[in-house]
Amino acid sequence: MPMTCDSAFRDKRVLITGGLGFLGSNLALRLVESGAAVTLVDAMIPEYGGNLFNIEPIRDRVTINFGNICDRLAMEWLVRDQDYIFHLAGQVSHLMSMTDPYLDIEYNIRGTVVIMEAVRRFAPRARVVFTGTRGQYGPAICLPVDEEAPTNPKGLYEISNLTAEKIIKLYHDVHGIHTILLRLTNIYGPRAQMRHSQYGVVNWFVRLALDNETIKVFGDGQILRDFLYVEDCIEGILRASVSPEGHGEIINLGVDKPSSFLELVQTLIDLAGSGRWAFAPFTPERKAQEPGDFYSDIRKAARLLNWRPTTPLRVGLEKTIAYYRQHRHHYWESPQPLSLKQAI
Amino acid sequence: MPMTCDSAFRDKRVLITGGLGFLGSNLALRLVESGAAVTLVDAMIPEYGGNLFNIEPIRDRVTINFGNICDRLAMEWLVRDQDYIFHLAGQVSHLMSMTDPYLDIEYNIRGTVVIMEAVRRFAPRARVVFTGTRGQYGPAICLPVDEEAPTNPKGLYEISNLTAEKIIKLYHDVHGIHTILLRLTNIYGPRAQMRHSQYGVVNWFVRLALDNETIKVFGDGQILRDFLYVEDCIEGILRASVSPEGHGEIINLGVDKPSSFLELVQTLIDLAGSGRWAFAPFTPERKAQEPGDFYSDIRKAARLLNWRPTTPLRVGLEKTIAYYRQHRHHYWESPQPLSLKQAI
Repeated sequence: MPMTCDSAFRDKRVLITGGLGFLGSNLALRLVESGAAVTLVDAMIPEYGGNLFNIEPIRDRVTINFGNICDRLAMEWLVRDQDYIFHLAGQVSHLMSMTDPYLDIEYNIRGTVVIMEAVRRFAPRARVVFTGTRGQYGPAICLPVDEEAPTNPKGLYEISNLTAEKIIKLYHDVHGIHTILLRLTNIYGPRAQMRHSQYGVVNWFVRLALDNETIKVFGDGQILRDFLYVEDCIEGILRASVSPEGHGEIINLGVDKPSSFLELVQTLIDLAGSGRWAFAPFTPERKAQEPGDFYSDIRKAARLLNWRPTTPLRVGLEKTIAYYRQHRHHYWESPQPLSLKQAI
Repeated sequence: MPMTCDSAFRDKRVLITGGLGFLGSNLALRLVESGAAVTLVDAMIPEYGGNLFNIEPIRDRVTINFGNICDRLAMEWLVRDQDYIFHLAGQVSHLMSMTDPYLDIEYNIRGTVVIMEAVRRFAPRARVVFTGTRGQYGPAICLPVDEEAPTNPKGLYEISNLTAEKIIKLYHDVHGIHTILLRLTNIYGPRAQMRHSQYGVVNWFVRLALDNETIKVFGDGQILRDFLYVEDCIEGILRASVSPEGHGEIINLGVDKPSSFLELVQTLIDLAGSGRWAFAPFTPERKAQEPGDFYSDIRKAARLLNWRPTTPLRVGLEKTIAYYRQHRHHYWESPQPLSLKQAI
């Protein structure tokens, strides 16, 4: 991966919300290597992705600030003097949002307002990058899905992300804040949580393969998705954050070559050398929630950011397997009690 | 106005959130006359529209329940056994949402989830009617604006209404709740709050005329809007609530013949026999917030609900003037201290 924009971050001050999570920690690793002064905010909500091991390689070179983004006074201090604010914290599980709708409103909507009010008042020249989800579109009306497609999200997680995006856009339009609004597809790779299957389907499948379990492939396995390797995603986020063309825009980060779930699972088991798969019928609930084929039109990202993913699925899965094979005890074989154990 | 659907409400149980406010009280009057058993919930937030005088004619024929829609346990009791739930409570001022964004999230978003969770659990067969705003569209891309137009709301009030609509739609799609989603244009008429100018521009102009003050007409006064008289609006809400065709739909309620602000003001002063008007330049803030011409395409309401407004602007203004001339002391000459007095 060419690290074309890393020099832009030398000696810059960077705040990452959700900084100990999947994307946040991968982003922090790149930014620290680039010479940025990085502060990570994380609420460490047990079921979410915050994990100190994620930043083990840079532990002594970042500032960690434990705290919830809804803590107004804390955020007002943390945003000050930052050049870049990567706002990644949030409730990120569709399934969890369907059982407790209040967390999405609290973290994804109110938390976003807390951050943006703090930015407006104390860091109006910071660049704010928001990572939304392809779920904001809802089911694809035509494929691939570009940024002009209608937004009919089918869950509170997805609705709350769309709301957060519109709120941040408002601070751009009304208060002149420099914002970049990304919509991410399914991301996979090292440093995602592996304790439960409430979100992050590819990583969950990696765990099942490594545990030599059976992976259920629903329906005929032919549903298409674009699975984006985390390093490619981070490269896109970084390019968007420094690009003048990204300013105020909504940009998809995805993969232009989709894969079927069956292809994903077969490749994974082949690479892992363990695990097996079996077809399973859709449950009525799963069927109702399943949005069908989805993959992103990424021509806008190519045009504005000169970005495209470069990691083939096979290579991304290989790296992911290698990481978790080496570090599994930091992700799902830890001794501490897991509050979502029943849900696994 | 033909009251074509009122018989449908005989002996029905009806809950109205925001029931002591502008739309809520006008709706309650019609429903009580139709023989419905009506409960009104109102938080009585000082700057908002709740006013006991609004329901003076039916005071002994309704149940009043003071309370905030964010009160989960109260709402769980109130929704039980209701046939219809008109969810009108909320923060309704664009200007207020720009100074305190948290109220919109609390009342318009979280409050809506509280209501819908209560409905899902305790009143899954109730019909839920939501009154959103034309502001959910943002500036018109082409006129008139139909329900398929893109939604790019330009304020937190408008964003929060769009979010509320999408949340209610979710309960329809996932939990099978019978919902009707309306998007209302500028409504005017008796029983709106008249103490400040933070929302409800037509009614505010009525007060200025009755007080023999000068009404400022911004720019050249040629910006077009569709001003809907409240009785027409209530008729539309009632028809939508009983119509099988309204189920799950998003429907505009507006006026197909728009008026300019200048026409509005001149007609008003002519009818009132008091007040005067003067052109005023847009302030930069007002200009940035002004969405330009807007009027609603109401063909969907005509087709599905057999509804169209029947009150000409002149007639609606006449009735509004007569009401406030008779009852002004209940609306802006009351002795109690007004917390927004500075803003007037």
